[in-house]
Amino acid sequence: MPADPKPELRIVVIGGSAAGPKAAARARRMDEHAEITIIQKDPDLSMASCGYPYYVGGVFDDRNQLLATPTGMVRDPAYYMNAKAIRALVNSEAIGIDRANKIVRGRDLPSGMEYDLPYDKLILATGARPRLPNLPGIDLEGVTTLQSIKDADFLRRVRDEGRIKKAVVVGGGLIGMETCEALHLAGIEMTVVELLPQVLPFLDWQLAKVLEAHVATHATMVITGNSVAEFLGRDGKLQAVKLANGMELPCELAVVAVGVIPNSSLARDAGLEIGKTGGILVDEHMQTSDPDIYAAGDCVESTQRQTGAKIHAPWGDLANLQGRVAGENAATSNRATHPGVIQTGICKVFEYTAGSTGLSEAAALRVGLGDLASVVTAGPDRPGFMGGQLLVNKMVADPATGRILGFQSVGPGDASRQVATAAMAIMGGLTVDDVANADLPYAPPFSLAIDNIIATAQCLQNKLRGLMVGISAEDLKRKLDAGEQPYLLDLRGPDEYEMTRLGLGEHLIPLGALRKRLAELPEDPETEIICYCKISLRGYEGARILMQRGWRNVKVLEGGIAAWPYPKER
Amino acid sequence: MPADPKPELRIVVIGGSAAGPKAAARARRMDEHAEITIIQKDPDLSMASCGYPYYVGGVFDDRNQLLATPTGMVRDPAYYMNAKAIRALVNSEAIGIDRANKIVRGRDLPSGMEYDLPYDKLILATGARPRLPNLPGIDLEGVTTLQSIKDADFLRRVRDEGRIKKAVVVGGGLIGMETCEALHLAGIEMTVVELLPQVLPFLDWQLAKVLEAHVATHATMVITGNSVAEFLGRDGKLQAVKLANGMELPCELAVVAVGVIPNSSLARDAGLEIGKTGGILVDEHMQTSDPDIYAAGDCVESTQRQTGAKIHAPWGDLANLQGRVAGENAATSNRATHPGVIQTGICKVFEYTAGSTGLSEAAALRVGLGDLASVVTAGPDRPGFMGGQLLVNKMVADPATGRILGFQSVGPGDASRQVATAAMAIMGGLTVDDVANADLPYAPPFSLAIDNIIATAQCLQNKLRGLMVGISAEDLKRKLDAGEQPYLLDLRGPDEYEMTRLGLGEHLIPLGALRKRLAELPEDPETEIICYCKISLRGYEGARILMQRGWRNVKVLEGGIAAWPYPKER
Repeated sequence: MPADPKPELRIVVIGGSAAGPKAAARARRMDEHAEITIIQKDPDLSMASCGYPYYVGGVFDDRNQLLATPTGMVRDPAYYMNAKAIRALVNSEAIGIDRANKIVRGRDLPSGMEYDLPYDKLILATGARPRLPNLPGIDLEGVTTLQSIKDADFLRRVRDEGRIKKAVVVGGGLIGMETCEALHLAGIEMTVVELLPQVLPFLDWQLAKVLEAHVATHATMVITGNSVAEFLGRDGKLQAVKLANGMELPCELAVVAVGVIPNSSLARDAGLEIGKTGGILVDEHMQTSDPDIYAAGDCVESTQRQTGAKIHAPWGDLANLQGRVAGENAATSNRATHPGVIQTGICKVFEYTAGSTGLSEAAALRVGLGDLASVVTAGPDRPGFMGGQLLVNKMVADPATGRILGFQSVGPGDASRQVATAAMAIMGGLTVDDVANADLPYAPPFSLAIDNIIATAQCLQNKLRGLMVGISAEDLKRKLDAGEQPYLLDLRGPDEYEMTRLGLGEHLIPLGALRKRLAELPEDPETEIICYCKISLRGYEGARILMQRGWRNVKVLEGGIAAWPYPKER
Repeated sequence: MPADPKPELRIVVIGGSAAGPKAAARARRMDEHAEITIIQKDPDLSMASCGYPYYVGGVFDDRNQLLATPTGMVRDPAYYMNAKAIRALVNSEAIGIDRANKIVRGRDLPSGMEYDLPYDKLILATGARPRLPNLPGIDLEGVTTLQSIKDADFLRRVRDEGRIKKAVVVGGGLIGMETCEALHLAGIEMTVVELLPQVLPFLDWQLAKVLEAHVATHATMVITGNSVAEFLGRDGKLQAVKLANGMELPCELAVVAVGVIPNSSLARDAGLEIGKTGGILVDEHMQTSDPDIYAAGDCVESTQRQTGAKIHAPWGDLANLQGRVAGENAATSNRATHPGVIQTGICKVFEYTAGSTGLSEAAALRVGLGDLASVVTAGPDRPGFMGGQLLVNKMVADPATGRILGFQSVGPGDASRQVATAAMAIMGGLTVDDVANADLPYAPPFSLAIDNIIATAQCLQNKLRGLMVGISAEDLKRKLDAGEQPYLLDLRGPDEYEMTRLGLGEHLIPLGALRKRLAELPEDPETEIICYCKISLRGYEGARILMQRGWRNVKVLEGGIAAWPYPKER
């Protein structure tokens, strides 16, 4: 047997959730002879924290699945030692970094014993903690978060015991919405309270409202544009949540999910540079301002690839990608790089999926991108005969270059494929024209002959070429509220109209009759005419007819009735 | 009401299946005042022909769904006239094109009456017809294809009547495999006969074999490397299929699906240039050698974007994309372009999906790309606790630039998302490193924290960097068959080994025990050692240990046992 050829490199990893174990494992594969130690405050290691809502909701029952490899090995310290020759110190906290002497000061939590751990390379993967608003009653029993496995254990017990009848989720972000669904599955009557005017802030307003309407069909109330003023209780136990507007929501449980804060104080105390988002500053090698210290995951500040902006991007997939880069670079030279993020995210909320990649229109406006092209479309993901399901999409592009800046998709259809496809298109710098002609996998069980995202790109292409003038639901609503009276032209059939309609004084002329009934339309060719149907495909066809027959102010209501975020008549 | 401002343009479209109606509709939206006529040989229009197998298989029962808009309007001549002001002549055949006088000569099939149709712009969308081998007995009752709606009607009746017990599908391509599943669903005992050594020729051999093994679990026989010599019958009715090797397969039904041939004789007779694939030659504007004649869909020759090669690409999605371009350009100037194809395809076969985009390794070798990097991986699409399902992937790249050339995915998992993502990556010119660090939508219901395709890219990245030396199942089998005796190291646990194993004289050392049991390994550091596990993740970890402890000829069996295409021991 060959002998050990290399002197040992000492690598210490602080944090054992996602980025830390990934970094340690990658470092080990790079360097079999390094001495690698993980320091982990929690008793568990390598928790699949994005799975907590599904454990809470009863999608699966074996808690060990959150901690196990695909073959069922629980990733405990013995596993790390045997499979990876990595020493994992659990229930152990890093309390200081002596950069001059390259020593981590640690504390074993059960015994209180302190120890020194010398390192050659240090990797910080200290994660993030839930933001907890400083509100009266926040310490009441029944107020919790869903961030740690302890939280998941608590909420799972809540589910299994079945005693709690009403709960409030504070915060309508991704974790808030997933938690809402999980507790609803546990039979609890849910209310979500969100400070912003919409849930899921990575979506533009209109798409968020489509999702909220779906959530409401599950007897779950979503209150937006309101915040919690106080948690009310008796005998130390939560009894209600009181909102800023005075409304009281009786409940025995409140889950606070208003975002997370990077755990960067250890780095800050050690004199490492911290970004303006509060995350540890790293370069593309995941290297901090100290060349012997790397950082990865929820504790760092990431770079948005499209804008160059520094953002906090606490996503589980990024933690793994960044951890892999940090681990490789700590063990070797700085050969690996992480290119930054485009803020791709997705979540399931009841039967709907909501996903986004790149910049929403609101996000693009926030970073000063003024001149934008965008479109909202609605359409099925597959043919009707294969059980096609609706998706409402929004695509945002730069009109000067045609480059796609962002894409969102919401609905019961397969948004996962659409958003993944769009993410790759954005990373490849593709344009609206490129996607409008993309060669994507088509077969009826999976997609339409004109793929859902291709249809969206073709619609935006039509807008960019002036073949179609779109109007968003918001803009139309604003016009109507301001007393303007555009001519609303519903191009569906009478049966469809009977079932549901906008109810805003619209005129019904089925597309097939339009050319014969042109005399019914406003005589003045400058009249604003807004065409639509269920998904505005017939709306677009109608608009093309009118535009070419002399009407000069014809618009298409984007996404049609399917994407209309306001109440409809039935 | 404004008046008609423009003189009429006469557009004639020959073909009413996919590309033709799309071209006509797009032309109409470009030019409300054009006179647009479709000539269609069949009685039906705008058939969703890719849906035929699902109608035959009973996935849905209403035949009209193959012919209807999403809101249920059957696309018949009245629909085209009312909704689109397009005249559709069905049961009508174009029998000649007089280019000098710009006239199409047509014949009404029921009456035999001939007519002249003048055009300013002509669009050819004549489609393709099934290739029918010139074999004895091919005219027997019971020998059919699944190309036309008439075929679909016939096979659906076969299903509904339930009298046929055994059938043979001749040809293991996409339509053959879909037809096999459809008739199996009808309760018919199926055999597939394929001339090539594998089914689904867009896949590399190993992945095709993974699919064939799945098909075999449905009591369906797949015979590769064999062909049909004769259809045997009595009283004009099929009784058996006789293969080239003399084997006879008794059956009452045979579906021939050995590819399609572009219908280009009308174009050829009119003197238009025909490509060497037999398809009509068109440029990026879908313009033929006659500037007043466009062509689109299964009748044209397409350009492979990666190689520039001319190929016949008869896919339904391309017909729509190309038809849209042809229709726009016929009605306006040559503003629209189609960028060519990357041969993206997908199909469902029982519980498995098989998809491919770009070049397979075999296809790349065929076009003379000699220096290739590739990897086969196996892994789940989602976490185990969310019911993750296996996918076997293959990624092919150019080692000089790192650019991804092709990607294939087979298995019960969500290959649709993976292949769509890869297609976009190829169209964007992305590299293995780009995909290894891609920001894709992650949440447990949809994907892994390290997405399935990212894991494949990371594995290929490891190979490209020399961190891993892979060996394909084929290469290992060849070695063993040649009498070589590499040391086979199975790194799974004893329980897993008990359930299934290669059975090739391998040694079992669980990864967690490897470092303690190194003394059991061959002493000679030049010994070829081949590491693997279920999916070769532990195999890779084991290989890293050995490579760094002095063994110099360590390889990883790519895709592990999950991707092993030969029989296993149980």
